[in-house]
Amino acid sequence: MQGIVRAFAERYGQNKYVTAWQTDNEYGCHDTTRSYSQDAKLGFRNWLAEKYGNISVLNEAWGTVFWSQLYSSFEQIDLPNLTVTEPNPSHVLDFYRYSSDQVVSYNKQQVDILRELSPGRDIIHNFMGFYHEFDHFKVGADLDIAAWDSYPTGFLEMFSFSDEEKKRYYRQGHPDIAAFHHDLYRRCGNGRWAVIEQQPGPVNWAHHNSVPLPGMIRLWTHEAIAHGAEFVTYFRWDQARYAQEQMHAGLLRPDNEPSPAFEEARQVVSECANLPDLKTENADVALVFSYDALWLFEAHPQGASWSYSDLCFRWYSQLRQLGLNIDIVAPGDDLTAYKLVVVPSLPHVDPKTMEALKRTDAVVLFGPRTGSKTANLQIPENLAPGPIQELVPVKIIQSESLSPIVNEAVSFKGKEYEGLQWLDYVETDLPALAQRKTGEGVYFGEGRYRLLCTVPDKRFLGDIFAELLFEAEIEFHPLGNDVRSRIKGGCTYHMNYGPEALPEQFGTLLKEKDVAFGSENFGPAEVVAQLKKV
Amino acid sequence: MQGIVRAFAERYGQNKYVTAWQTDNEYGCHDTTRSYSQDAKLGFRNWLAEKYGNISVLNEAWGTVFWSQLYSSFEQIDLPNLTVTEPNPSHVLDFYRYSSDQVVSYNKQQVDILRELSPGRDIIHNFMGFYHEFDHFKVGADLDIAAWDSYPTGFLEMFSFSDEEKKRYYRQGHPDIAAFHHDLYRRCGNGRWAVIEQQPGPVNWAHHNSVPLPGMIRLWTHEAIAHGAEFVTYFRWDQARYAQEQMHAGLLRPDNEPSPAFEEARQVVSECANLPDLKTENADVALVFSYDALWLFEAHPQGASWSYSDLCFRWYSQLRQLGLNIDIVAPGDDLTAYKLVVVPSLPHVDPKTMEALKRTDAVVLFGPRTGSKTANLQIPENLAPGPIQELVPVKIIQSESLSPIVNEAVSFKGKEYEGLQWLDYVETDLPALAQRKTGEGVYFGEGRYRLLCTVPDKRFLGDIFAELLFEAEIEFHPLGNDVRSRIKGGCTYHMNYGPEALPEQFGTLLKEKDVAFGSENFGPAEVVAQLKKV
Amino acid sequence: MQGIVRAFAERYGQNKYVTAWQTDNEYGCHDTTRSYSQDAKLGFRNWLAEKYGNISVLNEAWGTVFWSQLYSSFEQIDLPNLTVTEPNPSHVLDFYRYSSDQVVSYNKQQVDILRELSPGRDIIHNFMGFYHEFDHFKVGADLDIAAWDSYPTGFLEMFSFSDEEKKRYYRQGHPDIAAFHHDLYRRCGNGRWAVIEQQPGPVNWAHHNSVPLPGMIRLWTHEAIAHGAEFVTYFRWDQARYAQEQMHAGLLRPDNEPSPAFEEARQVVSECANLPDLKTENADVALVFSYDALWLFEAHPQGASWSYSDLCFRWYSQLRQLGLNIDIVAPGDDLTAYKLVVVPSLPHVDPKTMEALKRTDAVVLFGPRTGSKTANLQIPENLAPGPIQELVPVKIIQSESLSPIVNEAVSFKGKEYEGLQWLDYVETDLPALAQRKTGEGVYFGEGRYRLLCTVPDKRFLGDIFAELLFEAEIEFHPLGNDVRSRIKGGCTYHMNYGPEALPEQFGTLLKEKDVAFGSENFGPAEVVAQLKKV
Repeated sequence: MQGIVRAFAERYGQNKYVTAWQTDNEYGCHDTTRSYSQDAKLGFRNWLAEKYGNISVLNEAWGTVFWSQLYSSFEQIDLPNLTVTEPNPSHVLDFYRYSSDQVVSYNKQQVDILRELSPGRDIIHNFMGFYHEFDHFKVGADLDIAAWDSYPTGFLEMFSFSDEEKKRYYRQGHPDIAAFHHDLYRRCGNGRWAVIEQQPGPVNWAHHNSVPLPGMIRLWTHEAIAHGAEFVTYFRWDQARYAQEQMHAGLLRPDNEPSPAFEEARQVVSECANLPDLKTENADVALVFSYDALWLFEAHPQGASWSYSDLCFRWYSQLRQLGLNIDIVAPGDDLTAYKLVVVPSLPHVDPKTMEALKRTDAVVLFGPRTGSKTANLQIPENLAPGPIQELVPVKIIQSESLSPIVNEAVSFKGKEYEGLQWLDYVETDLPALAQRKTGEGVYFGEGRYRLLCTVPDKRFLGDIFAELLFEAEIEFHPLGNDVRSRIKGGCTYHMNYGPEALPEQFGTLLKEKDVAFGSENFGPAEVVAQLKKV
Repeated sequence: MQGIVRAFAERYGQNKYVTAWQTDNEYGCHDTTRSYSQDAKLGFRNWLAEKYGNISVLNEAWGTVFWSQLYSSFEQIDLPNLTVTEPNPSHVLDFYRYSSDQVVSYNKQQVDILRELSPGRDIIHNFMGFYHEFDHFKVGADLDIAAWDSYPTGFLEMFSFSDEEKKRYYRQGHPDIAAFHHDLYRRCGNGRWAVIEQQPGPVNWAHHNSVPLPGMIRLWTHEAIAHGAEFVTYFRWDQARYAQEQMHAGLLRPDNEPSPAFEEARQVVSECANLPDLKTENADVALVFSYDALWLFEAHPQGASWSYSDLCFRWYSQLRQLGLNIDIVAPGDDLTAYKLVVVPSLPHVDPKTMEALKRTDAVVLFGPRTGSKTANLQIPENLAPGPIQELVPVKIIQSESLSPIVNEAVSFKGKEYEGLQWLDYVETDLPALAQRKTGEGVYFGEGRYRLLCTVPDKRFLGDIFAELLFEAEIEFHPLGNDVRSRIKGGCTYHMNYGPEALPEQFGTLLKEKDVAFGSENFGPAEVVAQLKKV
Repeated sequence: MQGIVRAFAERYGQNKYVTAWQTDNEYGCHDTTRSYSQDAKLGFRNWLAEKYGNISVLNEAWGTVFWSQLYSSFEQIDLPNLTVTEPNPSHVLDFYRYSSDQVVSYNKQQVDILRELSPGRDIIHNFMGFYHEFDHFKVGADLDIAAWDSYPTGFLEMFSFSDEEKKRYYRQGHPDIAAFHHDLYRRCGNGRWAVIEQQPGPVNWAHHNSVPLPGMIRLWTHEAIAHGAEFVTYFRWDQARYAQEQMHAGLLRPDNEPSPAFEEARQVVSECANLPDLKTENADVALVFSYDALWLFEAHPQGASWSYSDLCFRWYSQLRQLGLNIDIVAPGDDLTAYKLVVVPSLPHVDPKTMEALKRTDAVVLFGPRTGSKTANLQIPENLAPGPIQELVPVKIIQSESLSPIVNEAVSFKGKEYEGLQWLDYVETDLPALAQRKTGEGVYFGEGRYRLLCTVPDKRFLGDIFAELLFEAEIEFHPLGNDVRSRIKGGCTYHMNYGPEALPEQFGTLLKEKDVAFGSENFGPAEVVAQLKKV
C-alpha cells in the first residue's frame, strides 16, 4: 500500500490541479476492519504486550482467573474467535480496540507520505454511514476534512428501522439519517467535513433500491450545506453501462443524458447564490457518542435487542424533532459551551470525561448503563453508575434486559407511558422522578444532573427532553415526525421528509422571516430557507 | 460415468424388454450443477477462452475496466465466489452458463453411448420441479422424451407460495404446479414428454408432508394425460421399510398391501379406456420462458424480492385461471402459430427472438425489465427496453425495486389496483394505458405490442390479460382460484383443486357436452372429462 | 482427564470436609456431546463393529441396500455428516447412540477413580435443562445423586415457548420448567437428586435476561424441596466483577452486599424448620420419557415442527395443571405401582417395555407414532404401532405431518376441538373415540389401553386426561394456567407462577388444612404449604 501511495504522490503531489487527496475508500467496507488471520494474531499480541507490559497486568484487567484462563505469556493469547463457549469480554473489547488502531495506523501511513510529497493539499477520507468498527474520531484527527458517503435510502433499507418507517420514508430515507452523520463527522473533522458521495438516484446495493422522490437530491444537498459541509459531490458522475455498479445512478444516465438528479444539483447551485455567507456555530445541545462504548456493548450486550447505535440515533432524532441544532461530541470533549448535554449511555466514564461533566454548567442527562463498567470491562467496585454516583447518588444493584415482546410502563409527572426497554434497579435515597407501577424508580436527579435507568419510548423521551430544555432555557419548536430544521448563521432551513405537503406547518414555522428559496406549499421533499429579518 | 453407462448398455442395450433408458437421476438435485472445485475452475477458464478467444474481448464483455479488474490472461480468472465484495455480474452469468453447459455435455455423453449400443430405444431424463440451474431446453434437445418428477404437495411446501395458498392447497398442491411443468417440459421434449415419478401419497422430504386428498392421485394422473404425457408412472412401486425414503409412499404399503393410491391409479386406467384417441394441439397462447434470463436475474437481481421464476409462474397461473391452454416456448421459437404471446420478462432479446416477435401476428405483451440488458449483462447503449424500442417506443430512464412492505397503486380503465412491485420509469411520447397516482405511466402500447413496466398484482394482471384476449379474439372462461381446465383434442378436462365441492360451477361449465367420466358434484379433487357432442 | 481426577482424588479424597464430588460440569454444554473429529470416526467404527459383529448385519439393520450404499467393511463407514444428500437415518441414530455412550463412559471413568480413592463420598453430576443429547438415565445409574442446574427464566427465553408464555412468565419462567426436570432427574438419580445451581437472580446467557419477581427464589427453592430435592444450592455465591459471567447474579452482589435473593434463601431455611419430616412417595401417574426416542425423531422427524421434547413437556404440563404428582419413568421401568401411565410417544417399544405395559393394571395412553419403528429405525413388518397392535388392534397405514399454518379439527364426546398437529391414518375395526370432520378416527381404545393418533391441542388433551383419570379413579383438581401443586408426605405445596394475586383460588384450594407457611393473598410468586389436619 505504501508503495502505491508513494508512487501516486510522487507523480501527482505537486500537480496544480490536485487540491486534495482521498485516502483509500470507505475503511471497513465489506467487513475488513477485524481480521482473524495469523498476522492479526501476532499483531494483537504485540499490541497487548505494549499496552499491558506484564502478563499479570493483563490477567488482572481481563479477570482471567475466572474459568482458570490465566495466561503466563502474551504468546498464549489467541484471537477471541473459535472458542468452545463465549470468549472473555475484555479480551474481545481489546481485540476491537486493536483492530480500530490498525485502521488509524493504516490511514496515518498514507497521510504521512502525502504530507511529505504533496504539501498544502487537504487530505480526506470518505467514511460510511452506520459503520462504527473503528474510531472515526481518531482517524479524523489525522485528516484535514472528514468526508462521508451519504445514501439515505439504502441506509433506511439496510439498518434497524421499523417497517412503518421503511414504508413511509422509502423514497426519502429516515429524516435523521443524513443529519446524524453530518453532525458526527463534523466533530470527526474538527469542523471541516463534506459529503463526497451523495446518492443521486437509486443505488444497487440495498435489499431493495428505491427511486428518490423528486426533490430529494436537492433536499439532501441543501441539508448537508445547512449542517456545514464544505462541499457536496455526487457518486457518480455518469452511470456505467457495465459491471457491478451499473444500476447505481449518476448525474448522467447510461446514455450520457442528464439524469433527474442533474437538474436538482444545478438548482442548488443557483439557490445557494441567493444566500449570504453563513457560518456554522456551536449548538446549545451536545450528544456524547463513543466508539469504545459501542464496542464494549457489542462484546457484552446482556440483551440481544440492546443497541448502543440505535439508542444514540433515537436520542438524536428525538432532540432534532424539537427543532434543535445538535453537536455530537466525543467523550472527554470540553462541554462548557453547552446548555444541555445528553449521554445516551457511556459504560466507562474516564477521568477526563468526568472532569468535563463537572466543569460544565449544562443540564446533563445520563442514560441507562452509564458508568456500569471500568475501562477494562469490569463492574466498578462501587457498582454502577460508578463515578457518576458523585453526581447522582444512586447505586444500580441489578439490571434487566427486556425482550421486545416484554416491556414496562412508567408514570412521569402524572402521565403514563409504555414501551420501556432495559431496566436498571436502583438503591438510593433520592426520590424517583418517574416510577414503574410496582414502585421502582427509573429516573433520578440531583442538581443539574439526571439519570434515566431505562430505554424510554419516544413519547416519554420527548417529554423528558422538553422538561430539561425548559430548565436549560433553550427555545425549541416541536416539528413532528416528518419535518426537520437546521439553523446556520442567520438562516433557518426547513426540510419536509414526509410524503405529503404541509402548507400550514410552513405558515406557522416561517412567519416573520424572509424566505430565500423554497415553496410555500411545503410539499414532499421541499426545502425552505429563511433569513432573519434585519 | 462413461464406463458405467457403457457397461449397462453393452449388457442390456439389445435386450427386448428394454424399451427406453433414463440417464442419471434428477440432474442438479442436491445443489450439484454449480461446482466451485479446482476442476470447475480450469474447465471454466477453457470455456471462456473458447467463447471469447482473446482476453481483451472478455474484458470488454464483462466491463472489467470497472474497479480495475482487467485481466491479462484467462489463467487469472477465478470462480466468482469467495470475493471480498460482490463479483462482476457478467462473470457470474458466464459461470452459470458454463455450469449449465456441463450438464448438457454430461447428458450428451451418455446419450451418445446409448444411441450407439442400444439403437431404437427412447432416451429419457427425469427433470425436477422449480429447478432451473441448467438449460432444460438444451438437455431436452438430446433426449427423445423429457420426463419429470411431479410432487405437487412437496413443491407447495418448499417453494414460494403464500401462507394462504399453503393452507388452502395443503393436500392438493397449488393448481398450477403440475401444469406449469407439464407445459414447460412438453417444449423441452419437443412434444414428447412424460411424468416418470408421480407422487402417490405423502413424501418424506418437504418441511411438512401431507397426505393428498382422496382423489388427488387420479386427478394428477388425468391432468398429465390432458397435457399430453405419453405415460405416467409412480414413484415408487412399493414403500421401503428402511433407509432414507421409508416415509415416501408407494403404490404398495410397506406391508405390500395396496396403498390408497393403488385403486386411484387403477381407476384412471379404466377411465382412459372410455376416451377416444386424443391429440395434443398447439395452444393459442404462448408464454416465453428463458433459463438464461433466470440466471441473469439471479446474478443481478437489483431487488431481493425480484424472482423471474415466480413472475413466469404467476403469469402462467393467471392465464390458466381464464380457462386457456398455454404453450411454454423458448426464446427464438417461431411464434406465428399463436394469437397471444406473453413475455413476463426477457432481459436480453436476441436477434432471433426479435425476428420471431416481428413475424408473428399475435398480440404481444412484454413485462418489466424486458430488453434491459445485452447478452453480456450490460445496459444497452439506447437504454432499456433495448431492441424492443422498435416495437414500443419508450425509454426506461431508471428502475426501482420495491420491497414487499412498499407497493404502488395504479389506475387502469377507470379501476384502481394496489400491490404493484418493481417500477420502470419511462420517457416516451406514447400515452400511458395505466398510471400511478403521481402520474407516471406503467403500461404502454403501440400496434399489437404492449409493455408493462411493473409487476402487477393478480387483479390488474387478470384485467390486462382479459383485454388482450378480446383483442386477440381468443375465447376464455374465468374459472376462479380452484378450478382448472385443459382441452385435448375434443375433450375438455376440468379439475377441482379446491377443498370444497362446486356443483354449480360444474353445471355452468359443462352444459351441452358429454361427460366421459367424473362426478356432477364436482367435489374436492374431482376430475370431469367432457367430449364435444358430435 | 483421568490424570486430573486422580490428582484431585489423591489429594482430597480422604479429606473429612469433602462429602461429595461433582464430576466435570454440565456434560454436553456448548455442543460437546457429538464430535465429528477423526477420533470420533474411529471410535464410532469400533462401536459399530462391537454392536453388529459382522458388516452384513449392519447392512441389514440400516437397510443400506437402498441407494446402493452397502458396506463391505466397517472401515468404509464415515460419520453421518458432509453428505451430498441426507444420510441414512439408522446411521445417524447409531451415531447419536454412540455419542451418548461416550459421555456415559467418560463419566464412569471419573466415578471409578473417585470410588477407589474417595470411598463413602457421594458422586454427583450437574445436568442441564432441556438438554437431551446423551442418556441421562445411564449416566445417572453411575452416580449417587443426579443434580441439575435450574434456570427457569433463561430456559423460558431460549426454548420453545409461545410469545404469550414468554411474556406472561418473563420474570418467573413457565410453571413446569423446573418441575419437569425435578421429576425427570429424580428418576435419573433413582430417587436421590438435588438442585446444585439454582438461579438467584438475572443470568447473563439468555437472549434477554430478566430480574425474577420478588419471591421467585423462595418459590423455586420450596418447589425443589417439594419434589424431593436433597439440597438446593445457588449459583453463584458472589457475583464476580469480571470476565464472562459478571452479569450472572449471586447471593452476594459484586460489592459483597446481600443480593435480593439472599434474604429469600434465608426465609426458606426458617420456613422449612416449621415442617415435619416429609417423605417423597410414588405418584399415581407415570409419564414414559425416552432419550433414544428423542434421538430417533431428531434423525427422522418427517415434519419440521415435530418435537418429541415439546410433546413430553406439554403432556407433563397438562397433567400437572390437574394438580397431580407425576413420576417420569424410563422405558422398561416397572409400571405396576401406577394407576395411569401416559406415553406421549415411543417409536420403538422394546420387549421389556412391552412386558411392563402388559403387567400393569394402569390405564395406559399412547401418543402418535408410538410403535412406528423397530430398534434399527425401520417400519415394523406389521406397520405401526408395531407390537402395540396387541393392546390396541389398529394399523397405521400412512402418517401426515401438519405445518403450524395447517391444523385439523376433531370432535370428542360432543365437543369440537381445533389445532391438531400430526395425523396417523388408521385401519381398524375399533370404533373411533374421536373423529375428524371427514370421518377418520384419531383416538381408539380397547380395555384399559388407548391410542391417540394426533398431537392434540391443550383443551382436547386436558379432556382426554380428565376422562382417563376418572377411569383410573385418581382424584384431581384443575388449577388453571398459573398455579401448580405438589404433595410431599402429608404436605401440599401450592405455587402461584402468575403475575397476579389469586386470593379466591387459595381459599378454595386450601380449606380444611393447616397452613404451615405462605400468605392467604396468594400473590405472585407466593408459595403456600399445608399440612393435613391430624
